[in-house]
Amino acid sequence: MHIAVIGLGLIGGSLLRALADAGHDVVGFDADPPTRELAGAAGFTVAESVREAVEGSHVTALAVPLTVLPHVLADLDGYGGLVTDVTSVKGPVRDLLTGFRFVGGHPMAGKETSGFTASEADLFDGCAWVLCLEPDETDLADWLLLAALFTGMGARVVPVTADEHDTAVARISHVPHLFAAVLAGQLTTDPLAGTLAAGSFRDGTRVAATRPELIAAMCGGNRGAVRQELSRLIAELQTLSEALDRPGLISLLRPASEARRGWPARPGEPAAVAADVPALLALGRSGGWVTSVHDTWLVGLRPETDRKGL
Amino acid sequence: MHIAVIGLGLIGGSLLRALADAGHDVVGFDADPPTRELAGAAGFTVAESVREAVEGSHVTALAVPLTVLPHVLADLDGYGGLVTDVTSVKGPVRDLLTGFRFVGGHPMAGKETSGFTASEADLFDGCAWVLCLEPDETDLADWLLLAALFTGMGARVVPVTADEHDTAVARISHVPHLFAAVLAGQLTTDPLAGTLAAGSFRDGTRVAATRPELIAAMCGGNRGAVRQELSRLIAELQTLSEALDRPGLISLLRPASEARRGWPARPGEPAAVAADVPALLALGRSGGWVTSVHDTWLVGLRPETDRKGL
Repeated sequence: MHIAVIGLGLIGGSLLRALADAGHDVVGFDADPPTRELAGAAGFTVAESVREAVEGSHVTALAVPLTVLPHVLADLDGYGGLVTDVTSVKGPVRDLLTGFRFVGGHPMAGKETSGFTASEADLFDGCAWVLCLEPDETDLADWLLLAALFTGMGARVVPVTADEHDTAVARISHVPHLFAAVLAGQLTTDPLAGTLAAGSFRDGTRVAATRPELIAAMCGGNRGAVRQELSRLIAELQTLSEALDRPGLISLLRPASEARRGWPARPGEPAAVAADVPALLALGRSGGWVTSVHDTWLVGLRPETDRKGL
Repeated sequence: MHIAVIGLGLIGGSLLRALADAGHDVVGFDADPPTRELAGAAGFTVAESVREAVEGSHVTALAVPLTVLPHVLADLDGYGGLVTDVTSVKGPVRDLLTGFRFVGGHPMAGKETSGFTASEADLFDGCAWVLCLEPDETDLADWLLLAALFTGMGARVVPVTADEHDTAVARISHVPHLFAAVLAGQLTTDPLAGTLAAGSFRDGTRVAATRPELIAAMCGGNRGAVRQELSRLIAELQTLSEALDRPGLISLLRPASEARRGWPARPGEPAAVAADVPALLALGRSGGWVTSVHDTWLVGLRPETDRKGL
């Protein structure tokens, strides 16, 4: 298949490498000339513009930040191939891509370093890759084509709607960054706290050290879901606060303690899943994922739900 | 010096070992007969009761849980030596110990395992050990005696009032446990979140796996400070939530990000500190600690405050 990758940072560069390794005919583009040179020197075909890169391609993967997407889309005007992306928020991107053949994606992959030099072909091996599926909107054949591509590079493809994705990442990433930020902010006025702080503080605040521009972009880009989930968790904190002098505190804390000891869940037994939208969305909502795509059915996994303790 | 250690779990057992290594005449007691046998088999003098253990001792260290303290105190009735403790909340213990020669302590040490078999003589080497100092109440000579004992085993002795301690541990340990609990609790209703969760969730929820009985005991035992600090941090989360669609979000997040990158602070240059209450409390409030005790002065360290970034 002929595939264009726009944006050759850590994610785009890794995607270029993984797709090439899988035998696809890939072409890359990055707005940054030194990055284009690096990719060319690594042996890849590199275009000099978005238009040149996507010319004749079946699939275009947009691996640029959310704020850059509108500029790239202007250059994609009239493009008839299938478009996907890798940004960490899916509702706003879905709105931006109206009028394109589009299936939104989000690989849950990353590392401490960034840029093309940090990219590697096996970055997505074993990672969860959200692939959005909207009832009455997504073309199932397009979805299956991308699911086959990404499972082919070892990713666990998770079928969910854009809204379900945005709520889930608010819960497991964006709000945790804000929790870490307010905890770490205490250091600015209380040197004693910094001297006494140990393991629970170290881990609970690790991601607060992320560049504030990145945290603001992630949380601001998903502000609807972040506000809603933050508000829900604040109400739970207030419930715990009111229970601090009551015997019920232990039973309020127990489910979270058991759930955390059982996370991450062990994969269950592989099972065939019908290649239709309701079956796929049910798989995603139950915590499952697709591991391979066949002609008329898929192999999916649900996590074991009865795992308790360590 | 003749020293009694009551309670021979991880902390008490380690204290017994460290004091013995430092050449002191130690005797231990634990309410659990198998624990007494273990300590005896390890070569320590073990008493059969609290009264027998503290008979003739200059110092008694209470290394029992907060809930057990009142029972031990009944057995200490009439004891004239210096009493200290190691529990994680200092205001309520100070109230319990009225009538004793008492200086409250809290070594910020621990590990994953517990019990006498996990104890080790160098557990306190390099750890921060809070030693409470109350103006117009604590006998400074008693405080200095304990500071000399604990710095002698490598601990960094931090002089603060009980209230300052309780606020600081609410900030850096108790509230972080509650944050982790509500984040981890999301797994109980959202299997999709568990499938997508990665590094920020893993670290931000690690301590939620602690036994709920322990989290409830820590937070409930310090509920005044925990409620106050939780309420303050909830207000900060609400400020962040309101700023999600404003350019000011980055500047709200920046101080926490820089503070976290500068933590833990590098120790500053050692300096002599006057052995008086105001000077010691000022050292503790500035994030400093005592490293050794001399006849009429101490050596203290303040962390470097101008360290920024990595």
